[in-house]
This record gives sequence, C-alpha cells and structure tokens, in this order.
Amino acid sequence: MTSATEQLNKRLVLRRRPVGLVEADDVELVTEPVREPSNGEILMQVEWLGIDATVRTWLSRGEGYLPPVEIGDVVRCSGIGRVLKSRSDRFAVGDLAYSLPGWQEYAVVSDHHQMSNPLPAGSEPTAMMSIYGAVGATAWMGIVDIGQAKAGETVVVSAAAGATGSLASQIARNLGCRVVGICGTDEKCRWLTDELGIDAAINYRTQDVATALREHCPDKIDVYFDNVGGDILDAVLGRIAMHGRIALCGAISVYNAEGRPPGPANYLNLISRRGRMEGFLSLDIVPRFAEIATQLATWVQDGKLTWRTHIFHGLESAPDALNAMFTGDNIGKILVRVRG
Amino acid sequence: MTSATEQLNKRLVLRRRPVGLVEADDVELVTEPVREPSNGEILMQVEWLGIDATVRTWLSRGEGYLPPVEIGDVVRCSGIGRVLKSRSDRFAVGDLAYSLPGWQEYAVVSDHHQMSNPLPAGSEPTAMMSIYGAVGATAWMGIVDIGQAKAGETVVVSAAAGATGSLASQIARNLGCRVVGICGTDEKCRWLTDELGIDAAINYRTQDVATALREHCPDKIDVYFDNVGGDILDAVLGRIAMHGRIALCGAISVYNAEGRPPGPANYLNLISRRGRMEGFLSLDIVPRFAEIATQLATWVQDGKLTWRTHIFHGLESAPDALNAMFTGDNIGKILVRVRG
Repeated sequence: MTSATEQLNKRLVLRRRPVGLVEADDVELVTEPVREPSNGEILMQVEWLGIDATVRTWLSRGEGYLPPVEIGDVVRCSGIGRVLKSRSDRFAVGDLAYSLPGWQEYAVVSDHHQMSNPLPAGSEPTAMMSIYGAVGATAWMGIVDIGQAKAGETVVVSAAAGATGSLASQIARNLGCRVVGICGTDEKCRWLTDELGIDAAINYRTQDVATALREHCPDKIDVYFDNVGGDILDAVLGRIAMHGRIALCGAISVYNAEGRPPGPANYLNLISRRGRMEGFLSLDIVPRFAEIATQLATWVQDGKLTWRTHIFHGLESAPDALNAMFTGDNIGKILVRVRG
Repeated sequence: MTSATEQLNKRLVLRRRPVGLVEADDVELVTEPVREPSNGEILMQVEWLGIDATVRTWLSRGEGYLPPVEIGDVVRCSGIGRVLKSRSDRFAVGDLAYSLPGWQEYAVVSDHHQMSNPLPAGSEPTAMMSIYGAVGATAWMGIVDIGQAKAGETVVVSAAAGATGSLASQIARNLGCRVVGICGTDEKCRWLTDELGIDAAINYRTQDVATALREHCPDKIDVYFDNVGGDILDAVLGRIAMHGRIALCGAISVYNAEGRPPGPANYLNLISRRGRMEGFLSLDIVPRFAEIATQLATWVQDGKLTWRTHIFHGLESAPDALNAMFTGDNIGKILVRVRG
C-alpha cells in the first residue's frame, strides 16, 4: 500500500445551495492532497457511500439535527472504507470503517464519529450501509421503540420500498403485525407484497391514499412509520386508531420544497383518539446498533429479512444518486461505488 | 320537596348545526315533563352548568371522542345539581351530583356517568366545575402525565387565562418550572403575572408570538400545553426544545372554522429535535380524579393555586356563555347559574 499522503483526493464540495433537485453546478469536483490524520483520527479510503434523504436536508440552510454543510465544504454523507492510516487505538490499518466520510475518495475522520459495531459473519461490507448500521437501527427504532408495534396491530409504512421503509415493513411483519406499505410504482408494490410478504401495498401515484387506507386498514392504523410527511401523513392521521403512534422518521415529500408546505390538518385526531406523534433519530442509539444488528442478522439467516441495493458508479454519480431518492427511481438502498 | 315529576323541564335542544358562533336560532327552548328515573338512574335538579370549548365540537357533525349531539337532542354539557330522586345505590336524595346533565333544568342520568369524587371540605359546589373535577384533572394530566414537566424546564400554556390553562400554568409553576402563558388581553396577562405569579405572559393579539417566545423562552420550550392549535401551535413548534413534549388538550382556534385550517408546518422540528406531540382526554383518568383533587386541594390551602369564575345567569344564557369561550371575553371558568 502506498502512502496515502502521496495521493490526491477528489472531493465534491458544495458550490451553492440547491433549489429542488441537485443540479450539476450546485457541486464542484475539486482535487486536493490528502492530509495526515492527527491523534484520534484515521485516514480511510472510501469504498462505498450510503445515500440517505437526510443528505439533501444538510444542503439547505437552516437548523437540523446537524448543522448545514457550508459552501465550499465536502458534502456530508455516510460511507465505508478501509483504514489506510490510524492514529486511534480503536482502528488498525486494513480495518473496515463506517463513518461520515462525505462525497470524496479519502477522508480523515475522528474515531469518535465511527459507528463501529462489527458486521455479522459472512456479510458483504455493503451490508453495513444497507441494514446493519444506521438504516436497520432506524427501522427498528421506529417500529419497536417509538411505534411500540405489537402483534395483531396494523402498521403502515411510507416509502416502503426504500432502504429504511422496506426493513421497517419486514420488522413489523416479523413481529406479527398487519403491514400496509405505501410506495410510488406498481413494481415496488409487487416487490412488497409478492417478495417481502407485506399484507398490502398502495401506489400513491395511481390510488387515492385515504380510500386505499380505508380498504386495507379496516381496524384503522395503530402505528405509522412516516418517511414522507405531506398529504400521506395527513391521510394516515385521518385514519389513526385510538392510542395510535406515529413515528416520524423523515419527510421526503417536503425536503426539496422551497418554503414549508402546510402541516397535517388532521393532527386534530390526535386529541380525540389520544394519539402520539414523535420524531426520532437513530444517532441517539448508536450504542445499541450492535445489539439490533444481532437481532436483524438472525432474521436474515432465517430468510425473514431481505434487502435490495441500487448501485451508482463513481464519485461523480453521487448527485444523481441523491436525486434518485426524490424522483422515486430506486428500490432499496442507494449506494455509490466510489472505488473499483 | 315536591315531586319532580310534577315539574316541567325547560331544555335547550339543538335545532340546526351552528356555523361559527352559536346563533339564537341554532337552539330552541322547549318545555317537557320530567321523566321518572329507571334502575341505576338519578333525577337531578341542575344548579350549575360548566361551559367547555368541547361543547362546541359536539354541535358539529363529525366523529370526536363522543358522538355529536343530534338535532332535536338537548345540548350535552357538564353540570352539577342536587339529587331529587334516586334509583341508584350510589346516590341519596339531596346529594350533590356531577355529571353531563346538558342544557336543561332537570336531568335523568345514569349513575355510571357520574364523576363522583367528593369535594374537598369547605369547598363551594362550583369548585367541582372549576377545579376539582375534569378541569383540574385535565390540567394535571397535560402538565404531569403527558408533558412530564420537571423543575427547571420551560413550560408554555396557551389560553392561559382560561379555566384549564390557568390551572395548568399554576401546576407547572408549583412544580418549579419557568412558565410562559399566552392569552388575548393585557388584563389577562396582568392576572397571570401579577396575581398568579407566572413568569411571563404574551398577548397574542398585540404581540408577535414567535418573537415573544424567543424573548421569554431563552432555553426553548420543553413542554407546551396546547388549548388553541393554529398559528400559536406552529410558533411553539418552531421553538421546541430537544425532547420537547406537546400536550394537545384542544384547538379552540379551529373549532369554529368551517373546513380544516392547515396543520402546523413546523411539526418537522419534531424530527430533528426528537419531540413528541400527544393528545389526551381526562375522561381516560376519571378514577384518578379524587387523588388529583387531593393534591390540588393542598395547593389551594397553601395559597398556591387559585381560580376565577365568570358567571352567566339563567339557562337561556348558555349559548352566550359558550360563545364567550371563543370571543375570549372570559377569565377563568365559565359557569351558567341555572337555578336561583
């Protein structure tokens, strides 16, 4: 292995804040020398980037759960790669690191920013991005911790064919719930019902969601795992059950919007039906990632949990990969293969 | 005491569903003979009616936590009165009964529909309507059970000079919270800060609520007791603290609206700040009313909890009394003196 400091690093930095989808001129490809890691840091060579809708929120001004990416900074993004140099007790050269390297080929990151639970034996490295890291923990946290889904209850999941939604749907099904997924193509609907064994799927582009929810949720909706916000959240609130729980994971329908679309008018039902709507972030349970991964791995081994990936090739494809989250082209986890 | 069955009963029945405020022609005064109680029922002579905003919601079509009042039926409303006849083991003639007698002079009610915790010694009968019944239990439930307010936290209460809001504000203050009340007149603001000892008060009619919340809640808002919904809920969501809790008690700003105003766009902050918004109804904790009343009575005795009443006279004044909830004319609990 040659010294990484001899390497030049390609990076995609933010040039201006996108309006709607990310355009080519919103980011700029720059080449810079790789810097040396300091104490407590590692240098990683990025192999895969994991694309999340939340990346889009970081490109807008405004306070979120992390500060926005500043103009001129590399676009923040999760990813995995091999450790080339380590000045940390926690990593050795050659280890696989799972962190927030950003849209670049090499990243110097603090070892405190690692999500370092080991991969279950026999897993592909990309499984950390698709299920055993933040994605699976998010799905678990929404269904189990926040949603408190119990066997026999009706669970609705939006963006159900996406990375998080497809895991959330299967976790709920494995817990014995009736699961209804909402997604945007008939192909996704078929994947959910025919391959994942979800009870019903609704194509929100061709069906009236409120009507379809009445049909598929005769006992109303006990738990809603919300990835999209907007009209679909409002339709679910219109049919929320007594003591229903809404786990707010994201609001992909509004991340690209300029200004803020109106909130859900049907929140009033939370009063008469004693419902609860609660936001959550798996960042808060990083110490539990390993324990959750162990449970998920058991289901994977038993054939009761599966996932798909949608792969883009090359660092320069990252903006298109991010846009695909919003145009709804993907089934499963969107990854960017940075190396090789 | 003469036999009540010789009495005629004046009743205000619903003639048509109000649009906005209740108009004179929306209800009709009818006179009917009083019927005999059956097994498990009592006949009460109504002395006081307790006016709640929720009465207005019962006059509209649409599913709430109780069915709407049907056209031709007496308007549902809480009240107290003396038992004239009893066919229940739980009540003797002459007892004070607290129930849902409706807008009428006499009511035959099931003893199962009683909220029968005793009044603390020395209390006026109206104290059951103003504090020791559903009103105090609602305030307690929102601040303690749902809001989980802790000493040192910042608590905001809307309709803070109303019956429930003024108790909620004082309960939070007694628990050691910083309390900011929102109301609609300077007189109410002065009552809250100068007489009830609330830390700050905002007049939403003359001040920009978002700006005032920034000033009065430097550490953001940990708990919000919401009686009003609408723009004020949205402003509070804009300043909700990490792990903030919103106890949804009511939405008086929208009860009179035709159609549904947009929901709170700032609900998105619940995600980044891991917040929770939860509806509740004190109907669910009727068995705990007595225990809560005992705690409240201790504070009353120590001079740490007080209330005001705003009294209307005569059954026929009930529609005006209800409208006063929405025009904001009242400070404290609105009561209608039906008898005497």
